[in-house]
Amino acid sequence: MTTMNRRFVLASRPTGAAREDNFRLETVAVPELAPGQVLVRHHYLSLDPYMRGRMSDQKSYAAPQPVGEVMIGGTVGEVVASQSASFAVGDQVVGMGGWQDYAVVTTDGAVPSIRKVDTTRIPLQAYLGAVGMPGVTAWYGLNQICEPKAGETVAVSAASGAVGGMVGQLAKAKGCRVVGIAGGPEKCDYVVRELGFDACIDYKAAREPQAFEARLREATPSGIDGYFENVGGMILDAVLSQMNGLGRIAICGMIAGYDGAPLPLAQPSLILRSRLKVQGFIVSEHMALWPRALAELGAGVAAGTLKYRETVANGLDSAPGAFLGLLAGKNFGKQLVKL
Amino acid sequence: MTTMNRRFVLASRPTGAAREDNFRLETVAVPELAPGQVLVRHHYLSLDPYMRGRMSDQKSYAAPQPVGEVMIGGTVGEVVASQSASFAVGDQVVGMGGWQDYAVVTTDGAVPSIRKVDTTRIPLQAYLGAVGMPGVTAWYGLNQICEPKAGETVAVSAASGAVGGMVGQLAKAKGCRVVGIAGGPEKCDYVVRELGFDACIDYKAAREPQAFEARLREATPSGIDGYFENVGGMILDAVLSQMNGLGRIAICGMIAGYDGAPLPLAQPSLILRSRLKVQGFIVSEHMALWPRALAELGAGVAAGTLKYRETVANGLDSAPGAFLGLLAGKNFGKQLVKL
Repeated sequence: MTTMNRRFVLASRPTGAAREDNFRLETVAVPELAPGQVLVRHHYLSLDPYMRGRMSDQKSYAAPQPVGEVMIGGTVGEVVASQSASFAVGDQVVGMGGWQDYAVVTTDGAVPSIRKVDTTRIPLQAYLGAVGMPGVTAWYGLNQICEPKAGETVAVSAASGAVGGMVGQLAKAKGCRVVGIAGGPEKCDYVVRELGFDACIDYKAAREPQAFEARLREATPSGIDGYFENVGGMILDAVLSQMNGLGRIAICGMIAGYDGAPLPLAQPSLILRSRLKVQGFIVSEHMALWPRALAELGAGVAAGTLKYRETVANGLDSAPGAFLGLLAGKNFGKQLVKL
Repeated sequence: MTTMNRRFVLASRPTGAAREDNFRLETVAVPELAPGQVLVRHHYLSLDPYMRGRMSDQKSYAAPQPVGEVMIGGTVGEVVASQSASFAVGDQVVGMGGWQDYAVVTTDGAVPSIRKVDTTRIPLQAYLGAVGMPGVTAWYGLNQICEPKAGETVAVSAASGAVGGMVGQLAKAKGCRVVGIAGGPEKCDYVVRELGFDACIDYKAAREPQAFEARLREATPSGIDGYFENVGGMILDAVLSQMNGLGRIAICGMIAGYDGAPLPLAQPSLILRSRLKVQGFIVSEHMALWPRALAELGAGVAAGTLKYRETVANGLDSAPGAFLGLLAGKNFGKQLVKL
């Protein structure tokens, strides 16, 4: 019996905002496995802001997503057929399977693009979030770039998201005052009450730069020493003016500018005046630190000391819409698609 | 006999561009020395871009220069009277004596603000330039922030200046391809022929951003790995787009924006896309490294392997005009005033 695989390919590159018709659903037969290959049935697909960058062909840290090919994406699932010596049917695996129900993965004679995960104390889908790329992203940017010390103030934008929520909890555990920035009272409540941040600024309630700056000053009376940026634009401008001397800024994302014209930085001279370090990074360039980060994150999730939240869309069909919602900030915590 | 001291005080803060009438010349009697004090007759005053920042009272890394007080400035000179156990008449000294002919310095019972220098193989005024604050600034920003490796490309703006010229020579000695940016063919010729840079771009011959970007691409065919910024504005925008992945930018100065409205950065998203480190610094915050830097710079100057050029204005009267010329890029190499 032939297994049919449904998959989304990039149909066209966006001009301006991404739209649903930039994606195209295809149904194709799963090919026969060759020796050394396994077939993975995906259970969850991860949707992440970086995907928007790959849809464009402008200069970036990674090659653009080719038009006509399966959209890139992190996945967790289960091995359902195996011609591999290293993976057995029933193995739970995490990988970069893309926006599709199934993936054929070559595991023998190559560095396998999937790895087995233990789901006894950590839910499978957490390997796409808190104990996966978003978690390691938070861990790396905070520890390797923001370098927070006890008593300092750390701020993070998109604070209720998969990355931002982890940044704040890790900084809090280091004895910092932690201030989040998020959109809407519900997200801000969650960030403070559930995740234990000291404060959270609702940027939607302070859309004028001056109003936002005033709230930021109120929430960070001793200034900001470390900042983890997921958003860019007006928020970054305001934070820059509130940074303490010798502060550190990790640039993880600039989602505010992904869809349109480049957003300028109003006062780059503050980098000099406040002697700031502003550093962009992509976590896949720092693989050597992943095992250490994943061990720490996994322990925290298993113990329940590191918390997270998920927004789950149902079925592969829902992926484009859920992705556009993510870009607009409609998700709440880690955005997943249940396949 | 009373010795009279002439000095420039800050008369008023600039609104917009600095002007000569922001300074006021005063003549006052040198007071009697108290025990532990020395009188220094200044031979040279250093003029440096950072002084423009001190004239304003906006947020900066240092307290603003107080109105009505002697303008801050590095000086070299000679002890001409001493009530100190540690300094004798005839000692050659470097210090922060300010814009004046004489300074009374307390040396005993305090960390003295002057130190003796050896002028047998190094000219006295070099302690204000290549073997002084500008030299250490170049050394620090290059080695601690740009971290150049042999074979990489390093670029520096204000390349014929006291700092920029040293940055390029130090990078060249490390086996880098070195590209300068300077104003006018004479400065560019000097940078390439005298200082040994591989190329120098005359930004005055390419005032349109696109023309400048085209010349920069030509001069840096393998991209830029380390950049030492003295200027900001359009030049920084162009360099950002030419930076290689994981590049490092030391922000030492942004002289293009000192006199007016803040100059924005057009595409801060490049910091993320190219995973750049952009770091501002002020060398006085890193005193622990000065002895090592000064030893290396002094050896190079004494041996003639590190070259520099000076523009010398004559007499204290000429200081305000020479300073405004410095801000406009009219100097060629280190700007001094012979007192």
